[in-house]
Amino acid sequence: MKKCRLDVSLYLVTDQKGLSEPLDRIVEEAICGGVSLVQIREKESDSRTFYYHVLALKKVTDAYQIPLIINDRLDIMLAAGADGVHLGQSDIPVGEARRLLGDEKIIGASAHSVSEALQAEREGADYIGAGAIFQTNTKKDTSVMTAETLSAICAAVSIPVVAIGGITAGNINQIKNTGISGAAISSAILHSQNPKLTAEQLRREIHIAR
Amino acid sequence: MKKCRLDVSLYLVTDQKGLSEPLDRIVEEAICGGVSLVQIREKESDSRTFYYHVLALKKVTDAYQIPLIINDRLDIMLAAGADGVHLGQSDIPVGEARRLLGDEKIIGASAHSVSEALQAEREGADYIGAGAIFQTNTKKDTSVMTAETLSAICAAVSIPVVAIGGITAGNINQIKNTGISGAAISSAILHSQNPKLTAEQLRREIHIAR
Repeated sequence: MKKCRLDVSLYLVTDQKGLSEPLDRIVEEAICGGVSLVQIREKESDSRTFYYHVLALKKVTDAYQIPLIINDRLDIMLAAGADGVHLGQSDIPVGEARRLLGDEKIIGASAHSVSEALQAEREGADYIGAGAIFQTNTKKDTSVMTAETLSAICAAVSIPVVAIGGITAGNINQIKNTGISGAAISSAILHSQNPKLTAEQLRREIHIAR
Repeated sequence: MKKCRLDVSLYLVTDQKGLSEPLDRIVEEAICGGVSLVQIREKESDSRTFYYHVLALKKVTDAYQIPLIINDRLDIMLAAGADGVHLGQSDIPVGEARRLLGDEKIIGASAHSVSEALQAEREGADYIGAGAIFQTNTKKDTSVMTAETLSAICAAVSIPVVAIGGITAGNINQIKNTGISGAAISSAILHSQNPKLTAEQLRREIHIAR
């Protein structure tokens, strides 16, 4: 998939904890509702389990030609033939990942400030994940980013910025006019009674918020 | 470093827990005492910390032209430019790693049985780590391998077999004549009062045991 077609508008971040149905089914419903990109986050399993988990979800994302991004583990991304890697501030440096991967793979980078976002862009990131925008149960040790910082990041970099952290259809309104290209969603979709409907609703809200 | 020169005879596996002096100094002393290969094992740190840890130890191993192997994390091995990766049964499959790495990098594989060892060899492993030979505090959830199984593994594969798990200069005698090419040591060197002397002693014992 060519990166010029990268659509980060409705970005689903997976988390297997506490799901009421199989993740691949939820992801498929969410894609049918408008999710444009999927990131697999899996901090607690061993490498082989993670690898097979990626292969299983890749069948779903490939069927709909949705890019699949792997959190942190560049090796598992390569082994599974996924589309890219998302790197936090405690993962491999973006510049090293870009050097290893060349230009074909997508590299996303988490940033909590303008300087982190600028550095990630300079090192070769394709998009910025900025947050946490709201309090979240998915990542507990994060501090909340103001709408002003989010706007400043969007103004500072020329790559797409995706807002992340506790975003729902009910609060996304608070970050409109910040310049974001999309929103990353986890719990609001994964724990929805109807992931497809929730994704559709979020997609509408994001198109208004951008 | 060409793999045909791979010397697994005295294989040091690092573990940062409870060390009384900096790991890079211990590793340097151990290399001066005869360690022929170093594997960095780091299960608890984040990816970036692990990456910088590898870069720091690589300065030592490069200075002595000793191969540096990374446990599990093929991505960190690539990013740091280390010499190879060691894969356990819960890491990325050996065949996938070989496909990604080509023939230049060293791939080691843990095996607990003849069938696991044969599969690893078939998938492209350069050596087998077989164990645990003795009870160990480094990895608590492992069962002990008999000298008979170790001998059977050595007889079954044509790649070098390194015995691992609780090996000291005092017990290595129990695995002589099994056909091993070397012994992997962790605590016995890392927690020695004199790592260089301990490595020298182990190297002598291993040359007798082989």
